[in-house]
Amino acid sequence: MARDLILGIEVVTADGTVLHGLRKYLKNNTGIDLKQLFIGSEGILGVITRAALRIFPAPTERQVMLCALHSFAQVSSFLDIARQHLDGELTAFEAMWNDYYRLTVERVNGMIRPLPTHYPFYVLLEASGNDAERIHADLEELLETALGEDMILDATLSTSKASAAAMWRIRDSTLELGRTFPYVSRIGFDVSLPIDRMDEYEKAVGLRIKAIDSRAFAIVFGHAGDGNLHLEVHHEHTPERREEFEKLVYHITGDFGGSISAEHGIGILKRPYLKISRTPDEIDMMRALKRTLDPKNILNPGRIFKL
Amino acid sequence: MARDLILGIEVVTADGTVLHGLRKYLKNNTGIDLKQLFIGSEGILGVITRAALRIFPAPTERQVMLCALHSFAQVSSFLDIARQHLDGELTAFEAMWNDYYRLTVERVNGMIRPLPTHYPFYVLLEASGNDAERIHADLEELLETALGEDMILDATLSTSKASAAAMWRIRDSTLELGRTFPYVSRIGFDVSLPIDRMDEYEKAVGLRIKAIDSRAFAIVFGHAGDGNLHLEVHHEHTPERREEFEKLVYHITGDFGGSISAEHGIGILKRPYLKISRTPDEIDMMRALKRTLDPKNILNPGRIFKL
Repeated sequence: MARDLILGIEVVTADGTVLHGLRKYLKNNTGIDLKQLFIGSEGILGVITRAALRIFPAPTERQVMLCALHSFAQVSSFLDIARQHLDGELTAFEAMWNDYYRLTVERVNGMIRPLPTHYPFYVLLEASGNDAERIHADLEELLETALGEDMILDATLSTSKASAAAMWRIRDSTLELGRTFPYVSRIGFDVSLPIDRMDEYEKAVGLRIKAIDSRAFAIVFGHAGDGNLHLEVHHEHTPERREEFEKLVYHITGDFGGSISAEHGIGILKRPYLKISRTPDEIDMMRALKRTLDPKNILNPGRIFKL
Repeated sequence: MARDLILGIEVVTADGTVLHGLRKYLKNNTGIDLKQLFIGSEGILGVITRAALRIFPAPTERQVMLCALHSFAQVSSFLDIARQHLDGELTAFEAMWNDYYRLTVERVNGMIRPLPTHYPFYVLLEASGNDAERIHADLEELLETALGEDMILDATLSTSKASAAAMWRIRDSTLELGRTFPYVSRIGFDVSLPIDRMDEYEKAVGLRIKAIDSRAFAIVFGHAGDGNLHLEVHHEHTPERREEFEKLVYHITGDFGGSISAEHGIGILKRPYLKISRTPDEIDMMRALKRTLDPKNILNPGRIFKL
């Protein structure tokens, strides 16, 4: 989380005051932690002009394992044992539903196909550190345990930086996949959900989309490790239909107790849906804070909510 | 940091509103992150009634290494290589200045003495995980590297849970040490500083204390890994003297750009010193937030600042 890496910030407030908070140590429990108010609030309370970040040396070695699994319950169990085996070495755990993996390796130019396309779920897992042999040994041990417990159906390990990069390209080619469908429009969603509801959520979204338009479909992938799911609805474009799909997915997300924006914020486009992820009391408090810190509504007006 | 482990909270505000924010996922970028305002603000903005925490399985194995070093610069270099070698396994890096280690092992009942008492600095380092052999091998490798580069002068590794606990007792016996000085009063401080200023800071505090009272002394130890230093001034007690030492240490902390409370908050006792770690503009903004969320000043009034 970016928030956890921010040691201090300098902020200019609505009345021109410069808040000098560019401190460079981690622990500072002296009154209200003001920087927390500005981080992630899209500039509506102040303008961040400088920031001090906590940084770490980049790991020299990254290795990747792609696995196939037969159910989302297994994806979830596999995440648990991957955490146990790899601990701090685990740097990515990306779940892909069948449609996403299959369509990407079949349709996007230049994709490798490290595993067959008929498995229900795929996980791309990355382990990082400074000791290549150890990471490799740890991944092999994890693989052995997971195969031994019938948790995964099939798997392949990267053998070089190039093969690791080729596997990552499968996960990173959502835009390219979208372009392979002529006359089809793509709506991207970025939601958070408790991991134990992801499977049911994906099924509910898929069914309700088909009920509106039998040719539309959703592809789903995400950083299952932190509860963040990306979902893309592909459909034949009319603006009205687009709005209908947006409303549908956001309301299902609300029904599942999820967040309508895990990473990207509210901005203007998602403003009508803020009330799905925040209660009326929470939104009232946000407005009260905005009025206190920016009474003339001059800072990024109209973002997140209208005053 | 406790803040980073909090997924969601339920808060009762001054007007009796219950803010339902007990969400259980990590990423939620939908408007101002209100929970951040309540965490660590000592109840002056609302009463936290429930919290959802992120938890991790406890490691099954903890091993400890006690090292002696000849300068604070070496403590800092040793921290860097310990991070490189141990990465996620490094769970404590506690620096002790000579006075602290020497007085504790000499005066407190039941202490072991794993290393001689004449070294300028000591570090108690802990590595944790689930694989005892690996942790031991990693600590030995770190030890070899550090000795090879003349970074440490002497070291000893725990050989059992009991010996690890005995080493931790040296670090954890500050209260017991205080009680070995009859008629001496102890003032505890909890400050944050950039690590590259800690050595100079300790020297400045020591000199200025002696200038007030030649029999007073400071013992210093801390979680150097996160910039947090604990400092205790021992002196013969009169209330006036106590206040003089408090003012002295807090003002030196301010001169070094540090925080006067890394972990423990402001409360009432440190209220006069808040302005050392926060600018007048920051304190004004805290007051404005307090007035907005608690206009009648009924929530923990008088904590952090007077309205």
